[in-house]
Amino acid sequence: MTVTGTEFKRGLEGVIADQSSICLVDGVEGKLYYRGYSISDLVGCTFPEVTYLLLKGKLPNQKELSEITHKLREKRSIPRFIIDIIHSLPKSAHPMEVLQACVAALGTAHHDDEPLEEKIITLISQFPIICASYYRYKKGQAVVPSSQDESEGGHFLQILKDAQSDKEEARIMETCFILHMEHGFNASTFAARAIGSTLAPYHASISGAVGSLYGPLHGGANEGVLDIVKEIGSPENVSAWVKKALQEKRKITGMGHRVYKVKDPRAYILEDLLKSCAEKTGNTKNYEILKELEVTMKLEMEKRGKPIYPNVDFFSGALYNLLGIPRELFTPLFAIARVVGWSAHLVEMWQDNRLYRPKLLYQGTRDEKFIPLKNRRS
Amino acid sequence: MTVTGTEFKRGLEGVIADQSSICLVDGVEGKLYYRGYSISDLVGCTFPEVTYLLLKGKLPNQKELSEITHKLREKRSIPRFIIDIIHSLPKSAHPMEVLQACVAALGTAHHDDEPLEEKIITLISQFPIICASYYRYKKGQAVVPSSQDESEGGHFLQILKDAQSDKEEARIMETCFILHMEHGFNASTFAARAIGSTLAPYHASISGAVGSLYGPLHGGANEGVLDIVKEIGSPENVSAWVKKALQEKRKITGMGHRVYKVKDPRAYILEDLLKSCAEKTGNTKNYEILKELEVTMKLEMEKRGKPIYPNVDFFSGALYNLLGIPRELFTPLFAIARVVGWSAHLVEMWQDNRLYRPKLLYQGTRDEKFIPLKNRRS
Repeated sequence: MTVTGTEFKRGLEGVIADQSSICLVDGVEGKLYYRGYSISDLVGCTFPEVTYLLLKGKLPNQKELSEITHKLREKRSIPRFIIDIIHSLPKSAHPMEVLQACVAALGTAHHDDEPLEEKIITLISQFPIICASYYRYKKGQAVVPSSQDESEGGHFLQILKDAQSDKEEARIMETCFILHMEHGFNASTFAARAIGSTLAPYHASISGAVGSLYGPLHGGANEGVLDIVKEIGSPENVSAWVKKALQEKRKITGMGHRVYKVKDPRAYILEDLLKSCAEKTGNTKNYEILKELEVTMKLEMEKRGKPIYPNVDFFSGALYNLLGIPRELFTPLFAIARVVGWSAHLVEMWQDNRLYRPKLLYQGTRDEKFIPLKNRRS
Repeated sequence: MTVTGTEFKRGLEGVIADQSSICLVDGVEGKLYYRGYSISDLVGCTFPEVTYLLLKGKLPNQKELSEITHKLREKRSIPRFIIDIIHSLPKSAHPMEVLQACVAALGTAHHDDEPLEEKIITLISQFPIICASYYRYKKGQAVVPSSQDESEGGHFLQILKDAQSDKEEARIMETCFILHMEHGFNASTFAARAIGSTLAPYHASISGAVGSLYGPLHGGANEGVLDIVKEIGSPENVSAWVKKALQEKRKITGMGHRVYKVKDPRAYILEDLLKSCAEKTGNTKNYEILKELEVTMKLEMEKRGKPIYPNVDFFSGALYNLLGIPRELFTPLFAIARVVGWSAHLVEMWQDNRLYRPKLLYQGTRDEKFIPLKNRRS
């Protein structure tokens, strides 16, 4: 539909809003690239290494990596007033609401003239602290001081559980963060850029992105997968469950993707991690259910000519479960990683900013006759 | 530029993202309609009356107006934890940062199953309290309990100044709010809808809109007009100032509008209010400077074939000034009014939601060869 030279694209479907050189999602080949590097090459890197790559556009050398690693660790603290805010919020709050509020409030701790990169590194380090601190407060537990020795993955587990983290678990956590750092123009990145395009401050833009990620159409799907796993109960039940679900035309959370036409490259990696973690702990049931579900669904849907594959959410919930992470922190975990991508997008956009300003198609009336209050019908 | 069936519209210029029947801006005729009613008819209404119109799509009758008026007054309070948050924030914060954080935090005080309309009316009533309370805290002054007797315009002045408001000033304030309640798909409304389209909660969406309004490309222009007025100093200097500004190709804040090709209909109303307020107080200098600036700019630009006219920001700063409102509350005043429009847009959108998801044009590389850390050049 064309209206005087403009085009009606409801939900902006099919519209390219901007250009970017941060992330490429190849849905046909099932490949994901950060700054041109395949995600399969990057999973062996550290959190600071991939953060550097996303923010700066190149892989760091030894010196650069030491610097950013050190800086991220050094910034592991939140101001006293943020702890006060966390402790003044109702315990019924969702950690994502707390995160959105705290990120906006953290903006007040920075001067306008502080370099953007300083703000970014500081905020990336603060995300896990806000999430873990609020969760512990909710449970009646004290805030845990951050260790400077842990990796980013280990640090989150340490401040969540108040214990030195297991090396292998820390590595799994770090890999999960890397896999979730960036994924092109998803809804939250779009929100960050839309807000940032008014030249709103960094924290104001990121806070809005957190709000967007809290939306059930964006974050939160991995919680739904755990519900399905629970509902199925054991691997033998998968076949009957799938038959019923297909009959009911039920949407299977964690399967299918708007861009990936094949299995999500991140799902392969998460599956491997889940499998080894399940075997190590001897707690393999959820993995077996999921694997059976993947295979059964693929077969059934192939028969219908519409093959369907796991996306990034399919295995991650069960994996977080094995790491002892409570469900309400699943979306915050996503945010702890994705803040790196949001930040990279703001850095890129602000180098040549342009206000995002689409239009609305007006479908209402005009020139309504104004009726004074006393003459309006009741 | 067309890329495999999609179109590159940088900044989404000229793209219609959605449909709406809330607001029509007729830039050629210089008319603004809320739900089909001309703004010139609505300026005589009350804040609750126009709020009802925007939210419900029709003018309220006597009974409906009493109900919404009563409800807005009844909801004039903020939870204790929001006062605690306000009092824990650094005094160097901008009220817009505080507002964004508090709105996100207020989401935690509402249940998911509370009717949206309840949340909306409550939040609309809370906006002025947050802004006035933080401003007073910053100045070392106590929070003022809200009067139930004042109109919305009067209530804001009452809690800001801790005094019963002057009837005429209260009416001017109310009119300013009505003029700023809605303006179609401006950047903050776009942000609210973009976040809300993920089905993020109401407060999460509004908080993001506040962040967007804080961006200097969106809110804040009326502060800039006051700078110009100060720089000019007196009406006799206008002519020389304009000559110099035009030579320097300086952009004149408060003049010109992306949609209005004539004088902004709101500027006519604000000019009248400023004039009468200036005459009443005997403090006419700023009005005279602005009027002289408008006339001179129009003449000069007409000579160049590019006539330019005042927009909504041109007279409002000077008017707020006469009402004794400090500059840093100018953008919060905008938010106090615009939250009504944002809310109307969310109500409308959620009746038939569709995720906003444009694309980015990838301009980077792919298949970069991964170089292990030890081999990277320093």
